[in-house]
Amino acid sequence: MMKLNGLARRYRVDDGRGFRLAVWDPGDANGLIDETSAQGLVQLSEIQERLCAQDHWAVLLILQGMDTAGKGSAARYIMSRMEPQGCQVTAFGRPSAEELDHDFMWRTTRHLPERGRIGIFRRSYYEEVLVVRVHSDILGNQRLPPKLVTRKIWKERFEDINAFERYLTRNGTLVLKFFLNLSKEEHKRRLLARLDDPTKQWKFDPESATEHQRWDDYMKAYEEMVRATATPDSPWHVIPADNRWFALLVVASAVVDAMEGLGLAAPDIGQQLQERLLSARAVLENE
Amino acid sequence: MMKLNGLARRYRVDDGRGFRLAVWDPGDANGLIDETSAQGLVQLSEIQERLCAQDHWAVLLILQGMDTAGKGSAARYIMSRMEPQGCQVTAFGRPSAEELDHDFMWRTTRHLPERGRIGIFRRSYYEEVLVVRVHSDILGNQRLPPKLVTRKIWKERFEDINAFERYLTRNGTLVLKFFLNLSKEEHKRRLLARLDDPTKQWKFDPESATEHQRWDDYMKAYEEMVRATATPDSPWHVIPADNRWFALLVVASAVVDAMEGLGLAAPDIGQQLQERLLSARAVLENE
Repeated sequence: MMKLNGLARRYRVDDGRGFRLAVWDPGDANGLIDETSAQGLVQLSEIQERLCAQDHWAVLLILQGMDTAGKGSAARYIMSRMEPQGCQVTAFGRPSAEELDHDFMWRTTRHLPERGRIGIFRRSYYEEVLVVRVHSDILGNQRLPPKLVTRKIWKERFEDINAFERYLTRNGTLVLKFFLNLSKEEHKRRLLARLDDPTKQWKFDPESATEHQRWDDYMKAYEEMVRATATPDSPWHVIPADNRWFALLVVASAVVDAMEGLGLAAPDIGQQLQERLLSARAVLENE
Repeated sequence: MMKLNGLARRYRVDDGRGFRLAVWDPGDANGLIDETSAQGLVQLSEIQERLCAQDHWAVLLILQGMDTAGKGSAARYIMSRMEPQGCQVTAFGRPSAEELDHDFMWRTTRHLPERGRIGIFRRSYYEEVLVVRVHSDILGNQRLPPKLVTRKIWKERFEDINAFERYLTRNGTLVLKFFLNLSKEEHKRRLLARLDDPTKQWKFDPESATEHQRWDDYMKAYEEMVRATATPDSPWHVIPADNRWFALLVVASAVVDAMEGLGLAAPDIGQQLQERLLSARAVLENE
């Protein structure tokens, strides 16, 4: 049985400078053979219990990637290994009119996880430097004061996101970011599979095909995102996503590793509670 | 009749470096005689209308000051000159358990004004570098991971607040901050007046007297707050607050000046709407 710890380390980007997406193989499976290797994953719920008991840290997992890249599978996989009341998944689709009337991080801020909890974002404020960047007409619909929309806007958004994540970290939220790195061929294959399967056709967004044609623009946007926002405190993980089960393993491994790094121990119950537990025992035993 | 525009300029701090509170006179009334001078204030609702029509900018007014300094009066004064559905007041008291389980700006972020609207905060995230700094036991109750609570925490909070306000400004929120600068003598007089008046005793917070004794600690905290967070984009106004009506005038004047600076014009209705208006006129006139 395989040891999961450390598996994710080679996919972690702590410093985005000079990052080049082209050298990261979406088909990488690290020499592993098959899904049975995943049996080693038992630590997750145990670490979550300590996170909840300590009630100091929150954990935010951000999942980004093209349509069909596996954001939903990853969220379900993590959730299925958790105590559900301590974990929440929020998906961010097209922003509402109310959301567009606010700064671009407002809508995600409202769903940040509390201390002791794990929050999973399927898409996030990073869409603001991805889809909004690829389709510049979306930016025009955001009702920003025109004089604020300059050529510096992407640089400013990266800077603001970095400052925000630094602030979250300082206030006790562990931020882990995952780019599910799919190959163009596998993207096409999965979209066609969705079209071919009558039970999955409802999941097919007619715009996906057009998005597929913008592949190079998207990859450029992802690359610049990692370059600008991978930091030691809130790293990106570039997850090879062509093998679905391997992607899940790497994500889970990264979560385990990072949460282990928080040094979570069961909280010290203190003398007073200790004594109350002793008398509770006495009550039960002397019945 | 007095011209309000420009009245607030001498109380505006664009750059906090070297700021010394001691030289700012809480009793200053700028040589004005009485309240009748306030009749010049007509511009506010007219500017608000343009803010709403344009729907690009939001305006955030932050009111800070000791108990009885006039935060409530200032909020009511601004509100009374506004179209109420375009303006909202939020008061922030002791944080709830849910709020403490988040980063310290979470609870205020949820109440940020939308584009086209004016939001007034009575107290704000600045309490985190004021009351929390004066009473260090409050910090202990915030459930931050202990290893994150270092001597750098106030510097970090200032840095995070600056980054957040810069981000808000970049995304179309005008941030204006007001410190209602009361003298220690006037604070004592107002507290005693509240105690003496049976109709106002319910407003008296028994802790106010203790807070009065911590006067010097508070003034030091306000001073450092202005030093660290007054910037050209989100300045502090140090409002002489011993004369209640004068404080209101200066706050209103500052709001007028800053909103005038946004260059708000009634939106261009465009040719298509122009034509529809013409045919609407025709329908009415040919009836």
